[in-house]
Amino acid sequence: MYTKHKVNDSTQTGLEATLETYPATLPEADLLARIRELNEDPSVHGILVQLPLPKHMDSHKVIETIAPAKDVDGFHVASAGALMVGQPGFWPCTPYGCLKMLDAIGYELNGKHAVVIGRSNIVGKPMAMMLLGRDATVTICHSRTADLKALTQADVVVAAVGKRDVLTADMVKPGAVVIDVGMNRNDEGKLCGDVDFAGVREVAGWITPVPGGVGPMTRAMLLVNTIEAAERSAG
Amino acid sequence: MYTKHKVNDSTQTGLEATLETYPATLPEADLLARIRELNEDPSVHGILVQLPLPKHMDSHKVIETIAPAKDVDGFHVASAGALMVGQPGFWPCTPYGCLKMLDAIGYELNGKHAVVIGRSNIVGKPMAMMLLGRDATVTICHSRTADLKALTQADVVVAAVGKRDVLTADMVKPGAVVIDVGMNRNDEGKLCGDVDFAGVREVAGWITPVPGGVGPMTRAMLLVNTIEAAERSAG
Repeated sequence: MYTKHKVNDSTQTGLEATLETYPATLPEADLLARIRELNEDPSVHGILVQLPLPKHMDSHKVIETIAPAKDVDGFHVASAGALMVGQPGFWPCTPYGCLKMLDAIGYELNGKHAVVIGRSNIVGKPMAMMLLGRDATVTICHSRTADLKALTQADVVVAAVGKRDVLTADMVKPGAVVIDVGMNRNDEGKLCGDVDFAGVREVAGWITPVPGGVGPMTRAMLLVNTIEAAERSAG
Repeated sequence: MYTKHKVNDSTQTGLEATLETYPATLPEADLLARIRELNEDPSVHGILVQLPLPKHMDSHKVIETIAPAKDVDGFHVASAGALMVGQPGFWPCTPYGCLKMLDAIGYELNGKHAVVIGRSNIVGKPMAMMLLGRDATVTICHSRTADLKALTQADVVVAAVGKRDVLTADMVKPGAVVIDVGMNRNDEGKLCGDVDFAGVREVAGWITPVPGGVGPMTRAMLLVNTIEAAERSAG
């Protein structure tokens, strides 16, 4: 029914990972049944379903089938709710990684104004909630925002839109921390983020590159969540 | 074990309500058992636990025991998560009532800048998510916000702090919509909101009074949620 690959532990964390690949024609019911099996398997601490799913599947239903205790991606409604109300749960890896970078430079968010551009369930909204939890004042901008440039003059800007040059040097306050979650390609086909890196780096105090910035942090936080899941399961 | 009161249907909605009162010494386990009973009772469509609870009880645990399908207060983690990710669920009544007031004046939120002062789980955070869901750009301010006055010059301001005079006329953009969720007492012991009503009404385009503004809307939305719960239960 599926192909099982043993994944090499290139991260040297001691985690065991198994990749299961299925034909795109797999019936949804079979996927749900497999998730339920993994939910019940005490040797499995984290379950990820790689999105996007084929069109005949309801992604929401599939994600909601993952046991919240194994939702190391942090995409389950229960994970979102826990983040929002400040209860323990798994945080989505990308915004969690952004927060860790702020911690790594010893940045004190308390009382700062942070602007998040983008309002996806995977990055924008959870990022806003995490920044709020650290006592930042938070603004959430998006495609309908009337005057983006007037709002991005903040202490921290997180760009998570998926569109090139969303943030340019004139939109950034000198010394600001700029985190670029975007992953796009420029005219030459090279990877680039949402931020005009060359321009903004001249103004910002801190800025993350693309590639090599948020991406590796996302993967690192997935490991953190998985270890956390194993620890919770061990009591 | 408890006193059961039949509540008069003063709202003339046809809803039947029962108030159960318990001694403050009630063991938490007994309250949880009673909630579970009500969860299983098909004749009950909504369950509210009046907060705050006595100190020996874990409010979070109590609220989480309510079946999400009967959480007409919208306080359950599953309800918060559903609101955050845009899935169907029950919305907390107070911010939901604020949104209904904006609808009642035909206010188009798309592209507008809305500022929420306060970040409680019951009002501030869900209010922000609802406004975002209507395509407003949203800023969440709170006690740690450095320069509140610079941020409140927005199209919509929702004050939900629980402190008098949080919002004064000089902080409001002419013509703005101001919604006052606060419920405080002034020096004369009279009910007042978070907004300096006398001053702000001269600047704002729309403003809600306290009392008689958000309060009745909260109660109305509780009825809406309960009817919705009954309809969902009936399929």
